Amino acid sequence: MSKFFTKRLNNLVPYTPGEQPQDKKYVKLNTNESPFPPSNGVLEAVSREIDRLELYCDPECVKLRDEMSRIYGVDPDYIIMNNGSDETLNFAFMAFADEKSPLVFPDITYGFYPVFAEINHIPYEEIPLTDDFSVDVNDYIGVNKTVVIANPNAPTGKCLPLCDIEKIVKSNSENVVIIDEAYIDFGGESAVCLVKKYDNLIVTGTFSKSRSMAGARLGFGIANPKLIADINTIKYSTNPYNINRLTSEAGIAALKEQVYYDNNCKTIINNREWTAKALEDLGFTIIPSKANFVFAKSKDIDGEKLYLALKEKGVLIRHFTKERIKDYNRITIGTMEQMEILIEKIKEIKGEISL
Amino acid sequence: MSKFFTKRLNNLVPYTPGEQPQDKKYVKLNTNESPFPPSNGVLEAVSREIDRLELYCDPECVKLRDEMSRIYGVDPDYIIMNNGSDETLNFAFMAFADEKSPLVFPDITYGFYPVFAEINHIPYEEIPLTDDFSVDVNDYIGVNKTVVIANPNAPTGKCLPLCDIEKIVKSNSENVVIIDEAYIDFGGESAVCLVKKYDNLIVTGTFSKSRSMAGARLGFGIANPKLIADINTIKYSTNPYNINRLTSEAGIAALKEQVYYDNNCKTIINNREWTAKALEDLGFTIIPSKANFVFAKSKDIDGEKLYLALKEKGVLIRHFTKERIKDYNRITIGTMEQMEILIEKIKEIKGEISL
Repeated sequence: MSKFFTKRLNNLVPYTPGEQPQDKKYVKLNTNESPFPPSNGVLEAVSREIDRLELYCDPECVKLRDEMSRIYGVDPDYIIMNNGSDETLNFAFMAFADEKSPLVFPDITYGFYPVFAEINHIPYEEIPLTDDFSVDVNDYIGVNKTVVIANPNAPTGKCLPLCDIEKIVKSNSENVVIIDEAYIDFGGESAVCLVKKYDNLIVTGTFSKSRSMAGARLGFGIANPKLIADINTIKYSTNPYNINRLTSEAGIAALKEQVYYDNNCKTIINNREWTAKALEDLGFTIIPSKANFVFAKSKDIDGEKLYLALKEKGVLIRHFTKERIKDYNRITIGTMEQMEILIEKIKEIKGEISL
Repeated sequence: MSKFFTKRLNNLVPYTPGEQPQDKKYVKLNTNESPFPPSNGVLEAVSREIDRLELYCDPECVKLRDEMSRIYGVDPDYIIMNNGSDETLNFAFMAFADEKSPLVFPDITYGFYPVFAEINHIPYEEIPLTDDFSVDVNDYIGVNKTVVIANPNAPTGKCLPLCDIEKIVKSNSENVVIIDEAYIDFGGESAVCLVKKYDNLIVTGTFSKSRSMAGARLGFGIANPKLIADINTIKYSTNPYNINRLTSEAGIAALKEQVYYDNNCKTIINNREWTAKALEDLGFTIIPSKANFVFAKSKDIDGEKLYLALKEKGVLIRHFTKERIKDYNRITIGTMEQMEILIEKIKEIKGEISL
């Protein structure tokens, strides 16, 4: 830290992204990317756009929001596009919480929430998940704070049914409720259908997972137009041109080929069920997942040891050091081939340990 | 504004980007874009990268910073890449100023500075430019605040010599000095050569102007590694993956074809001198410009009227309503063909007025 760094962020601990090692080629199951490339139309759309790169992009993302409107069944003024769902979340925190208006979210959830809270000087309460890593809906009824819930939750993969989400939104009519649906396309029920009914609900989403575009940086928020206008106030006060032309065209093309991505999600769901069963057969406890990952604990192998042993064997998974979940690992669901390698390597590790 | 919007940003007035009308095709001289497309290598590099779009991008931008290092003559740890220079500026404001540590910048300058200050609750002082729109260096000597100077300045185009920049940096050793060099490649002297000597200097830059990539969103900061680490603390607490894969590859390719962009800058400079002369011949006052635009006042036609009349005739220029500069217009320098159309249309307007 330089002597010039602001005192007000002295205690800020930045988010740690999943590792992206360059030393060798890994079976990469650590950052919940899709194992499938973008659809064919994306290639064509991006190539067409390169010749216009000298011109600023459209800060309003009119064409992209029109296409989103068609897929999500809400008018374009219910939609904001941002540089990843991280940016939407940060903007929403800035717009709807402050020193006097705190946040509440689970103790085990996406690790960026406390960082966004810290950088914006927003006090927050972390409500412990139940012993089986569930969100207890009663903890969030009429809680009188801005609520943030990842649904499905990360890194657990557990998902609340829509009726529970609605209870939380309905009981907090004086506060904004943010439902982070980064992983919704792998079996959960989206709350987008509730945004017309509740003026305090924001649903955030991303093209990084189900739409194979983690490297393109495209996320969104869907909410009542007044909330969207507020988030736009933040966007236009920080970085209005946050979606570049290439990503914008890639997004439009992807939305036109939604069937391809829906089929990929079905494949991932099937592979997830196969992987969960295979891990259980190897003595793992698996949290029931509606995401493109499973959260798994071995009865034989320490969480960190398994992570390190798999890395040694060329398979990357994600380990968290937080006390409550340090026995677990989060494993992204990839292709069947990748999942078979994972299971094979775990068998090897178990064999080596028992020698 | 919804009832949920934070009270602490009640008075925030977002930045207004230059208009991007879709109603018809304009000769677009209003947002300081390059009239030239990106170099050939950009097309190839981006096309190659589309197949990896499902994987997260590198938050550290290692390859891109290596290429930057080669062009700018500083080690990669002196460099941070961000989503446009706007993001670098906002991050630097967040890192090096706060409620108790104010900012200072000219009264007439890039309109985003006061917005970044407001959203971050940073008090700021605007020092009036001299009567001829110059930055008076003496106003910034030992000023005991975080200094922000656009050099060349916008929308005036006026440029301080390097020795004056050095005086400001040297005399403010207890504060950070940010030199915003968005327009430096059109004839100014860059302060990048000073970053090794002064630990309080940050130079920001962009690929939007001289490198024909406004639609790709790529900007950077160059400074002492300690300052870069501080800006990274902010980046990793807001949006670590802010540069997408396509933009990153486009940037690398552009840096490898620097000669193409240098030649384009020479063309723009020539066209600027031609345009300034032609406008002076038509009775305009022109502020001497080292940027890819001129700031021009007609002795016959009101600033706003000229802007509207040119828009009517299919030529877009930028008019600002701020009292001190409302008689002027900022006119981007494009191709000679575009400049000839501009002059022709102004002659038509003058003719119509004198009827």
